[in-house]
Amino acid sequence: MIIIMKPNADETAINHIVATIENKGLIAHLSKGAEVTIIGVIGDKTKLLDANLEIAPGVDRVVAVTESYKLSNRKFHPDNSIVSVGNTVVGPNNLTIMAGPCAIENEEQLMQTAIAVKKAGANVLRGGAYKPRTSPYSFQGLEEYGLKLMDQARKETGLSIVCEVTSHRAIEAAVKYVDMLQIGARNMQNFELLKEAGKSGVPVLLKRGIAATIDEWLNAAEYIIAEGNNNVVLCERGIRTYETATRNTLDMSAVPVIKSKSHLPIIVDPSHATGVRDYVAPLAKGAIATGADGLMIEVHPCPECALSDGPQSLTFEQFEQLCNELKPYANLAGRIF
Amino acid sequence: MIIIMKPNADETAINHIVATIENKGLIAHLSKGAEVTIIGVIGDKTKLLDANLEIAPGVDRVVAVTESYKLSNRKFHPDNSIVSVGNTVVGPNNLTIMAGPCAIENEEQLMQTAIAVKKAGANVLRGGAYKPRTSPYSFQGLEEYGLKLMDQARKETGLSIVCEVTSHRAIEAAVKYVDMLQIGARNMQNFELLKEAGKSGVPVLLKRGIAATIDEWLNAAEYIIAEGNNNVVLCERGIRTYETATRNTLDMSAVPVIKSKSHLPIIVDPSHATGVRDYVAPLAKGAIATGADGLMIEVHPCPECALSDGPQSLTFEQFEQLCNELKPYANLAGRIF
Amino acid sequence: MIIIMKPNADETAINHIVATIENKGLIAHLSKGAEVTIIGVIGDKTKLLDANLEIAPGVDRVVAVTESYKLSNRKFHPDNSIVSVGNTVVGPNNLTIMAGPCAIENEEQLMQTAIAVKKAGANVLRGGAYKPRTSPYSFQGLEEYGLKLMDQARKETGLSIVCEVTSHRAIEAAVKYVDMLQIGARNMQNFELLKEAGKSGVPVLLKRGIAATIDEWLNAAEYIIAEGNNNVVLCERGIRTYETATRNTLDMSAVPVIKSKSHLPIIVDPSHATGVRDYVAPLAKGAIATGADGLMIEVHPCPECALSDGPQSLTFEQFEQLCNELKPYANLAGRIF
Amino acid sequence: MIIIMKPNADETAINHIVATIENKGLIAHLSKGAEVTIIGVIGDKTKLLDANLEIAPGVDRVVAVTESYKLSNRKFHPDNSIVSVGNTVVGPNNLTIMAGPCAIENEEQLMQTAIAVKKAGANVLRGGAYKPRTSPYSFQGLEEYGLKLMDQARKETGLSIVCEVTSHRAIEAAVKYVDMLQIGARNMQNFELLKEAGKSGVPVLLKRGIAATIDEWLNAAEYIIAEGNNNVVLCERGIRTYETATRNTLDMSAVPVIKSKSHLPIIVDPSHATGVRDYVAPLAKGAIATGADGLMIEVHPCPECALSDGPQSLTFEQFEQLCNELKPYANLAGRIF
Repeated sequence: MIIIMKPNADETAINHIVATIENKGLIAHLSKGAEVTIIGVIGDKTKLLDANLEIAPGVDRVVAVTESYKLSNRKFHPDNSIVSVGNTVVGPNNLTIMAGPCAIENEEQLMQTAIAVKKAGANVLRGGAYKPRTSPYSFQGLEEYGLKLMDQARKETGLSIVCEVTSHRAIEAAVKYVDMLQIGARNMQNFELLKEAGKSGVPVLLKRGIAATIDEWLNAAEYIIAEGNNNVVLCERGIRTYETATRNTLDMSAVPVIKSKSHLPIIVDPSHATGVRDYVAPLAKGAIATGADGLMIEVHPCPECALSDGPQSLTFEQFEQLCNELKPYANLAGRIF
Repeated sequence: MIIIMKPNADETAINHIVATIENKGLIAHLSKGAEVTIIGVIGDKTKLLDANLEIAPGVDRVVAVTESYKLSNRKFHPDNSIVSVGNTVVGPNNLTIMAGPCAIENEEQLMQTAIAVKKAGANVLRGGAYKPRTSPYSFQGLEEYGLKLMDQARKETGLSIVCEVTSHRAIEAAVKYVDMLQIGARNMQNFELLKEAGKSGVPVLLKRGIAATIDEWLNAAEYIIAEGNNNVVLCERGIRTYETATRNTLDMSAVPVIKSKSHLPIIVDPSHATGVRDYVAPLAKGAIATGADGLMIEVHPCPECALSDGPQSLTFEQFEQLCNELKPYANLAGRIF
Repeated sequence: MIIIMKPNADETAINHIVATIENKGLIAHLSKGAEVTIIGVIGDKTKLLDANLEIAPGVDRVVAVTESYKLSNRKFHPDNSIVSVGNTVVGPNNLTIMAGPCAIENEEQLMQTAIAVKKAGANVLRGGAYKPRTSPYSFQGLEEYGLKLMDQARKETGLSIVCEVTSHRAIEAAVKYVDMLQIGARNMQNFELLKEAGKSGVPVLLKRGIAATIDEWLNAAEYIIAEGNNNVVLCERGIRTYETATRNTLDMSAVPVIKSKSHLPIIVDPSHATGVRDYVAPLAKGAIATGADGLMIEVHPCPECALSDGPQSLTFEQFEQLCNELKPYANLAGRIF
Repeated sequence: MIIIMKPNADETAINHIVATIENKGLIAHLSKGAEVTIIGVIGDKTKLLDANLEIAPGVDRVVAVTESYKLSNRKFHPDNSIVSVGNTVVGPNNLTIMAGPCAIENEEQLMQTAIAVKKAGANVLRGGAYKPRTSPYSFQGLEEYGLKLMDQARKETGLSIVCEVTSHRAIEAAVKYVDMLQIGARNMQNFELLKEAGKSGVPVLLKRGIAATIDEWLNAAEYIIAEGNNNVVLCERGIRTYETATRNTLDMSAVPVIKSKSHLPIIVDPSHATGVRDYVAPLAKGAIATGADGLMIEVHPCPECALSDGPQSLTFEQFEQLCNELKPYANLAGRIF
């Protein structure tokens, strides 16, 4: 941590900062320049987390030197993590495809989709049983009955399954059925939910918040890992910007940024990122070439009839064709698919 | 709802849309232009909510004509709402000042602050007992003990009290003590929490999400009101933009926009919006002149010692001076303060 | 300037940075912490502007300590600037109202408007002769004929006049007629235009770029002042965000931020910021209460017939009423109007 | 164009709109719903461009049905455009690599770079002679002498050359030397410059504005094409968002969106988009897999010594390795490289 003093900060102000630092058992290192004095802090800076040095007299700015996340930080864990999800793994040598409907609507819709995505090459079945919807008047999900259908689909196809959880109650139900809990974008900073997902011990797919920075995202992962659950996979799903040609703006740079800052695997969801079916295939290829560990893609037997997010869902035929087109890209990126 | 067809949409595509609309018991109204055909829908459009007309063959775009929120919409409730909070009201003729520390730290800190803000003119005491923090290693709040201190402060000062709730568990505890529940920015689309706050019947202060549109915000209010709880006050607290000179960008336009679209009261929080103490006073005056129904302001006996958000907190003296400066602005805006 | 080294930076890397700094005649100040080494630079850091220390081996980050703008910086010019514009001044004790049509359309429209805004209390007449339009098929302005009409309006009413310039050619024409050149949002980083406006010696109204940070804005002002032209007034006109309820998001915080960082006057344009007539009056009041030195407001004899930006223009009656409502706010803010 | 009336709009208001439309020689088509009346306009809507129907009494909203750009619109030009640049072409079967230094510094730097990028496989040499810099105190470019060096590099290597132009004066000089003019992000809505670039007849590389929507970008291209110059190539270079881990946020979705809306080629600049050398290679691969027609990449003999944008520049070795890695991706995407 570095404290930059204002040009007019006097000795009293500087001495006050030095004393505050030393009172916490840390070392203050002064650097007096022509214009300003800079004070470096040596030692465990977490002791200063709540010291509010920003507003001490004479202080201009405080600059953090180290990140606040530790367990998700590549600096302290240089090797790529591998996360087991049911009978598959997400990680450096695999390409993981999670596919399925946005919302589980009924047994037929889910079973048909599970069989189709399995046949095309997916490893994990996705399906929403608890749906966070902007309007209270939209379809809200089948809840535990949906989870049971997912369990049945797993038994019939051998796919691993992932379901979003939106509350304490949903986690309690989901842990009985699923291989992976999904925390959605709107709940990325629902810290109570993160802690409970951490305590469950079940692998977690953590979607990036609608306007979350990468630092906030890794701090959210930290909440889960701090509860003893290392099995976290990140999912880039687009961020909110001024551009309206796509529903969100897919931040493809997040892939190399995460690879640089963290050891956690990262997958990309081009369906939610764009909201437009025609843009899913090109961005799916782009994500693999950029280094993503996998993809999450919405598939529906009849997108036009879907109860949620139909416009971005692929038909079975489109999904199968996409998987075929992805294979050479996966190979080129050194991944098994 | 209006469906705009693509220039090359043929009769089959147009007839398919018309049939879909009519099958729901609605009327389709065709308008064939030189370039494109447009289809208007007459009747209760909620029947088409999940029809996915966007991806039917030949469709270019679907344009919503009416908002998805009803109960929070001024169109169906032209008069301004008044919300009672303990022994005060938030609404058109009052200026409500909610003030207090970001986090409740101990009895002395809270009681001193309560007495000071009461003396300066505040109506409501704010104080965080359940703190959503970006890092799991930051101070997380005193929880139920904090609520008890708030209750004690109310008894000593006569101020009404508002506390943030971040989970089912926190709501269960808070309803025993507080006059108003606060839903924070990070939980604005935690729909389970919104429903529970709605069911509690306790007045709710609903902060705008970090990157929420005004439409999403009013839909979040709709979740609360749809449970039978009309006592919702909105709080603008800044939105996330590219600008870094302030912590968030205070969207002052939200005040007249909300006044135009909704009957709910709106207050402004310049402390969280800017994160900088020096900017609180000018923006507090600006908010009143723009038409806000009140303010939320952080006050701390020793901002430099605060466990959370010290840099934006006012001292007792600064807060008292601000209240004195605000009085003529409140009068000019036709509000009692 | 502070250079933060990576945790694993070795002696060679550190010595290389120190040598680079010392070769420029500056002093390097080392601070070796438990985790990282930090190097402070003492002396004139402009010598290191192009040294690219960010990518030297072992460097994690470079943190700037001082702003790159000097002439527009309050640190080196503590008193508020006053800018003369024709026979009026923009500055701390005055409230300046610039009003008029978005685009000059014909003599009758301009003269009527000039007389009306003068009568209501405006000090400066605005009117666009060179219009930057998103589409090449929209009305592009009357060019020099428009400037002549502005000159005529000045003679008839005594108002000072301001016109936007969009090119070298436009500046050459405008300096013959106007009291103030306006650089629009789209040209805020058209550095050639800024330099020419600086060289002209004519006062400049510098609108904030559509997505410009406050630092970039003050650097743009620096381009003008560096040519010897100190007469710069800033104009906040909304920034681009994800919110669509208003055309742009008025960043009201820019007023106190600019007052804190710079000595230049700042006015607010609620017409362009919101794009909606009904939101102009509340935000105009809010801007004055927040501390703005003035307002820019669009007025048109028949907004419905306007060739540009009609939806946000006030009628003469609306403008007169607004001016009457603004007077007590101006008085309260200690300004003459 | 569709006009949506307010729920309470009366017959007078509706008749006024119908009359306005019919007075322009267009046909108005009424659709009276239970809640609102909708009026469709049939005929050439450009006649209504300046009618300001938004603010006519009783109007709620006006919805545009067709885009304002025509010449850059794929609807009216279904085949992909091919743009010749010197002795190479940008378009559907080629992968174009534009590489070189951000700023031309001297003969040696430029010639070495030209030879190195040619050897590695680049088709076009980039180099800045007129530099738009945020601060007036940063290096501003060699101007015409830089253009002469570029011309010399072309003669020695056979590479085509592209240079940014920032003013009328720069265009006058550049057309004597270059194969392609570059309009930078800050000038994307400098409409005078766009018109002059259009009139020059020289191919234009049009970078996306810092916060430009795709619609605004295609309208900017329209300004160039409307002057009779069809040779426009678009360049995605990142947009401004709240995320700070990269300098800008590379909007990879822009590639399929542009391919869908326009016939113009599009290339991607991962160097400026991220500002970080380590992120260039993964995003370059991703861009090709997503369907980009080419890349623009910064290369410098000694990035650490660069006068501009060193942190994002590749060394010769890094660039050669990247080109080798890109080849199989180009082949997979069906492009010659």
